[in-house]
Amino acid sequence: MEQQNLTFSQRHAQKFNGALIEMISMSLFAYGIVCSNGSDGKIALAFFGSLALCAPISGGHINPAVTLAMWLTRQISTGTCLLYWIAQLIGAFGGAFFCYMILGQINSPMVTDLNFHWIIADFSGEALGSFSFILMILIQCNPRTTFSDKPIASITLIALSLHLSRCYTFHSGGCLNPGMAVALELFQVLKTNEVERLNSMWVFIAGPFAGAIFAVIFFKLIYSPAFNRYYKIA
Amino acid sequence: MEQQNLTFSQRHAQKFNGALIEMISMSLFAYGIVCSNGSDGKIALAFFGSLALCAPISGGHINPAVTLAMWLTRQISTGTCLLYWIAQLIGAFGGAFFCYMILGQINSPMVTDLNFHWIIADFSGEALGSFSFILMILIQCNPRTTFSDKPIASITLIALSLHLSRCYTFHSGGCLNPGMAVALELFQVLKTNEVERLNSMWVFIAGPFAGAIFAVIFFKLIYSPAFNRYYKIA
Amino acid sequence: MEQQNLTFSQRHAQKFNGALIEMISMSLFAYGIVCSNGSDGKIALAFFGSLALCAPISGGHINPAVTLAMWLTRQISTGTCLLYWIAQLIGAFGGAFFCYMILGQINSPMVTDLNFHWIIADFSGEALGSFSFILMILIQCNPRTTFSDKPIASITLIALSLHLSRCYTFHSGGCLNPGMAVALELFQVLKTNEVERLNSMWVFIAGPFAGAIFAVIFFKLIYSPAFNRYYKIA
Amino acid sequence: MEQQNLTFSQRHAQKFNGALIEMISMSLFAYGIVCSNGSDGKIALAFFGSLALCAPISGGHINPAVTLAMWLTRQISTGTCLLYWIAQLIGAFGGAFFCYMILGQINSPMVTDLNFHWIIADFSGEALGSFSFILMILIQCNPRTTFSDKPIASITLIALSLHLSRCYTFHSGGCLNPGMAVALELFQVLKTNEVERLNSMWVFIAGPFAGAIFAVIFFKLIYSPAFNRYYKIA
Repeated sequence: MEQQNLTFSQRHAQKFNGALIEMISMSLFAYGIVCSNGSDGKIALAFFGSLALCAPISGGHINPAVTLAMWLTRQISTGTCLLYWIAQLIGAFGGAFFCYMILGQINSPMVTDLNFHWIIADFSGEALGSFSFILMILIQCNPRTTFSDKPIASITLIALSLHLSRCYTFHSGGCLNPGMAVALELFQVLKTNEVERLNSMWVFIAGPFAGAIFAVIFFKLIYSPAFNRYYKIA
Repeated sequence: MEQQNLTFSQRHAQKFNGALIEMISMSLFAYGIVCSNGSDGKIALAFFGSLALCAPISGGHINPAVTLAMWLTRQISTGTCLLYWIAQLIGAFGGAFFCYMILGQINSPMVTDLNFHWIIADFSGEALGSFSFILMILIQCNPRTTFSDKPIASITLIALSLHLSRCYTFHSGGCLNPGMAVALELFQVLKTNEVERLNSMWVFIAGPFAGAIFAVIFFKLIYSPAFNRYYKIA
Repeated sequence: MEQQNLTFSQRHAQKFNGALIEMISMSLFAYGIVCSNGSDGKIALAFFGSLALCAPISGGHINPAVTLAMWLTRQISTGTCLLYWIAQLIGAFGGAFFCYMILGQINSPMVTDLNFHWIIADFSGEALGSFSFILMILIQCNPRTTFSDKPIASITLIALSLHLSRCYTFHSGGCLNPGMAVALELFQVLKTNEVERLNSMWVFIAGPFAGAIFAVIFFKLIYSPAFNRYYKIA
Repeated sequence: MEQQNLTFSQRHAQKFNGALIEMISMSLFAYGIVCSNGSDGKIALAFFGSLALCAPISGGHINPAVTLAMWLTRQISTGTCLLYWIAQLIGAFGGAFFCYMILGQINSPMVTDLNFHWIIADFSGEALGSFSFILMILIQCNPRTTFSDKPIASITLIALSLHLSRCYTFHSGGCLNPGMAVALELFQVLKTNEVERLNSMWVFIAGPFAGAIFAVIFFKLIYSPAFNRYYKIA
């Protein structure tokens, strides 16, 4: 949430503050994903940690698709959106580079079969997972529909929601995070030379963004009116 | 909880609102169950997500047996009960159809042996699991006996309670949810042609409804009086 | 916690209320333990459910060793202590009987080797596990040292504490609960005829009671004074 | 947090109180680590229990590296720091001795390969894990940046943070705790005679201390200013 009555330089300081913390959180999360060896619970835990680090300062996106949803709902300006995207990409590449150099190991999501039906299933999983993840964030971050206004409950709820949403993508082992997918895949290709992995990378970019757009539409057109109609009457 | 002093059309708008959200949540939960590959924890998590989506608007049933218990305790009207049942069935079939088409995979509960003793054990498990699940909902939703009036605690508690109650049905791999059982079994039969599965489907319908009725009786006749007697004295 | 200024019959009604709910919770917990197939997490969850059921009415013991600790710290009268013990035993036997008849399956803790060193390790595990479990209950139930006065936090904390304390007894697969141990072992002997199991049953009775006594002593002599000294100064 | 206007003897009584409870918690935690058989979840749970025991009285360090960070941020005096270190070492040795005598079993972290790259990875893991663990403690214990001022939330958050941080050290199976590492390794060498384990013990001492120092620097120079700049403007 941004304030209106700030001087030009104050607003910029704030934005760069946020972008810096986003970058650090993103690279810590990348390291956590690689350390998780694919365990859903550990990825949720790593996300919880990164979120706790940046949520009070940057708002806690750590995901270009979440940043998109925040921009679509006018919770951040266009400039902040672009700045966060750049910071997230730098952070993801930094984290993946660290894992590549120090641990000598990278995990990344992959579409295992390129026939049409399989790709549709993977794309649907990524989009549906991102939809439910980002819908929960929109509900929780809206002061009217929020479940709890305590920061600690908010962070826990959103981390749990990532855990849940990743269950929806068991088909692709997806990550619901375009920035992370690009960075981890590129370093994995660098490591293992499986260049054919890149053929399906668009699924992990388009899926989450599609899910984010659907979530914003659903929240604006269905959830929010239903919520308001119910509580206006009540 | 329904309000009394509404115009006819307002009350209908409210009901249909609730039924729509029930339908969406039910189909999301069906998808989550299929994605869980039978993991208890993931099913509880999927239920948590669906519950968070619909609880503020429809009251969060996502289960015909819960709707029955709410009707028996007069928390919803007969019309709402029927409407919710229809919405839940449509949602469950929609979710199962989506899984069938996109994922090409369905899981459903099954009685593995039809001898009399085995069926009794399965039926008892389903009924006892539904009893404990719905009893927890009744305790939590009653303003006098509730553990916590925070929505987030309420959703977490009820999702945990589903997790626990499913442990009681390890024998049948049951789902404590007649609507889900019918939809998932029919689509699994469509997929695998194991028509003999349908012979035992009544267990997954009658068990939860029996559990719901026992839970209402226990709550009204034993728990609630004991609670009141204790706190009147105290 | 009992009130002082009640008529004779009111106090009795209250006691029997509590004992009835203790009995039901104990038998539900026995069923949950058998259904858990030994999973630590599921036992903690079953305990959480049983505790949620009885905590508001009986105080939530579900364990003769906890009842002993409550009596030693004067939180319940001698009569209530004996009544609860009887109710707990009846509940445990009822639950075990139900499992024996319906599920045809019983799990119970066992000392696998009778040499002296092994029995010492098992006894120490049971005593240490009960010590940490009951110490947490004493800290949480004391209005001065409690971590949180919300019932839901209290139930969660005590169920987590059982989960933790059972980790300390991995050696014996112990249950920290003399009533449950007696009931489950007797029915398992009935089922499998392994009469030699009874030789080590004293470990599962004496261990938890010893742990309860140590916990009360530690709480009174070390924890409580240290706590008071710290906060008096602060 | 220590108070200023106390007499000399009161301050000493307080310090020794804290050190005593630290020692007991540390030995209970050592026992819990050995019982966990390396399960991340069980170690976090054991830490939760030990933390709940000592947090209200000693502040809940249970780790020489945490004590170092508290000293560096001036939350404890030099005397308290040294006293806690001694108490923690005695506690760790006592717990390890108890496991050695009673359970006849010890687990300890180990660097499995002594080539240069492997040691760098282990050291980085230990340092990064300790960094994130101690950073979370610093954020949570600072009254300005804290997520929640409820003790129960605080304990849960810090135990979760240990769980997360241990995921970062999967490479070394590390423990982020120099005191525990020294005590468990020495007793394991006593048991199995693998003297070569001692060659890499410095990793488990230097790693956590380096992480603690980085965490204090990051908190002071980056996190805290960013936090203040954001909330001063907001």
